[in-house]
Amino acid sequence: MLDLANDVNDTVNRILKGEVLAAARLMRDLDDGAPQAREILKRLYPHSGRAHIIGITGSPGVGKSTLTDRLIQHLRRQGQTVGVVAVDPTSPFSGGAILGDRIRMQRHTLDEGVFIRSLATRGHFGGLTASARAVITVLDAMGKNYILVETVGVGQDEVEIAGTAYTTLVVTVPGMGDDIQAIKAGILEVADLLVINKADREGASRTYQDLLMMLDLQAHRHTSAWKPKIYQTQALENQGIEELMAGVEEHREFLAREGGEALLAARGARVRQEFLELLKEGMHLHLVRQLTRSGRLEEILREVLEKRTDPYSASEALVLEILGEG
Amino acid sequence: MLDLANDVNDTVNRILKGEVLAAARLMRDLDDGAPQAREILKRLYPHSGRAHIIGITGSPGVGKSTLTDRLIQHLRRQGQTVGVVAVDPTSPFSGGAILGDRIRMQRHTLDEGVFIRSLATRGHFGGLTASARAVITVLDAMGKNYILVETVGVGQDEVEIAGTAYTTLVVTVPGMGDDIQAIKAGILEVADLLVINKADREGASRTYQDLLMMLDLQAHRHTSAWKPKIYQTQALENQGIEELMAGVEEHREFLAREGGEALLAARGARVRQEFLELLKEGMHLHLVRQLTRSGRLEEILREVLEKRTDPYSASEALVLEILGEG
Repeated sequence: MLDLANDVNDTVNRILKGEVLAAARLMRDLDDGAPQAREILKRLYPHSGRAHIIGITGSPGVGKSTLTDRLIQHLRRQGQTVGVVAVDPTSPFSGGAILGDRIRMQRHTLDEGVFIRSLATRGHFGGLTASARAVITVLDAMGKNYILVETVGVGQDEVEIAGTAYTTLVVTVPGMGDDIQAIKAGILEVADLLVINKADREGASRTYQDLLMMLDLQAHRHTSAWKPKIYQTQALENQGIEELMAGVEEHREFLAREGGEALLAARGARVRQEFLELLKEGMHLHLVRQLTRSGRLEEILREVLEKRTDPYSASEALVLEILGEG
Repeated sequence: MLDLANDVNDTVNRILKGEVLAAARLMRDLDDGAPQAREILKRLYPHSGRAHIIGITGSPGVGKSTLTDRLIQHLRRQGQTVGVVAVDPTSPFSGGAILGDRIRMQRHTLDEGVFIRSLATRGHFGGLTASARAVITVLDAMGKNYILVETVGVGQDEVEIAGTAYTTLVVTVPGMGDDIQAIKAGILEVADLLVINKADREGASRTYQDLLMMLDLQAHRHTSAWKPKIYQTQALENQGIEELMAGVEEHREFLAREGGEALLAARGARVRQEFLELLKEGMHLHLVRQLTRSGRLEEILREVLEKRTDPYSASEALVLEILGEG
């Protein structure tokens, strides 16, 4: 028991010093659901909240990974340390995408100032959002100055994860009619900066006009004083990256300037989301374990399959039994 | 009270007879969270389980909606009734996509044998999967012979919804490197049939070979005797639709032939997923309501923000308080 406590202490200290091996082992242990890993995470939590978290989201093929790669490069040149969380099955950071991309990314793995962690979009029973948040907490506690979170901008989880960043970039490319529509359908709301990547392609100015119009349309919905701007980049050619990062800094300063209120609101919203997500998944895991052990789950499922009840009535009855009325 | 019971009875009967207006009103009421709507859903549930549910999934831009449109047309010509659930922000069925597509879809709205319902990918606190399942149950109870469920094949929810179909089509197009990778990362596992749409495009035979290889690689993982086949279509030109539907029927017969066991397993898995999802969302909603009313939630969040605790410890303590150990 004492050994275990020492071990936890030791790991916490090593991660707070920014040790890569200790952090990597913790993330693996978290994935495996090791109870000790969770204890370490709890101890790291109070040391988080210092990094600037940047979300990078958009459909597959818009060049999010190349853009992420360029942002890492830019930040490293300024002496900043960077953590990357890739929640994108098509990202070369996750082992997806084409070979050339993957090779391009490799160079960062030799840089001690960069820590890259990829998350699969499936297979985590505890929820992808919770996993992403845990990794962000570890990177933050390690002392990384910037954390880049790359997600595919479709799907509820992905939009939610992107929304937990302090500054969120929504990336699109010229001429993707569908893409603009996808943005319309939800992710525009979480965008602090809009990026038209591959801006040398035909139709860039049309896309620019479309985005401007959409921003105008939703301007009245924004309660914040922040007005999203549109940036044009060619990530592959390293064009427009400096301007984009200047925009990120501008947004960061905006958050800080608002008497800290905007940032505090952003932090409060993050904590609320995080706690509720953990509560939801934790309750469910614990409850399913109890129901499985007692044989109650199989019993209920049999009743539903035999149409003696329906899943709505069965789940409601169970909720009332556990939580009571009101 | 008696009036309410009569009203419920009346709506149930009208929906079982396939009345479009009653079904549309119920779906709207379900979205609004009307308690009466849930009662009706419970009554409809035992009448579901007869339709053949077909999932259609793939990245934005592969032509899922056009394909869905063609499948509707094909099924209607054979005298089958069709329900459509579009969980895709880029789908013209959901009001997304470009104008031309949307106009093309309009014709079905005049056909009494087709019922189309779109679901937004955001804003449903109770979860997108639960909403989709409820709509499927209503369409099924209405007596629709086929239910087509169109989802974007990225994101956890979307893959999960696609996986609840009896027959799942995974759609791709030639030459999308990223796309193939996205398939690799997860949705190939839920594919019963693979579709290469826009098969007149350059690179179709290369994509065909790639998919064949991927199917080979994962063949040993399939416990089922079913081997997914690859179909080539040009949905816009109505090419390959008949062959594809023949493939769907083949898969349906396979499910029925396996002594009903494959179908029973598929149904059992659906019921299990459905019940657990409802339980999870129901517990969470009820619990958050209780915690908000009592002021406990704000108290916990304040403690976390002031770093007197962390969200992990706080949520664990609450779970243990409610469910007890074990």
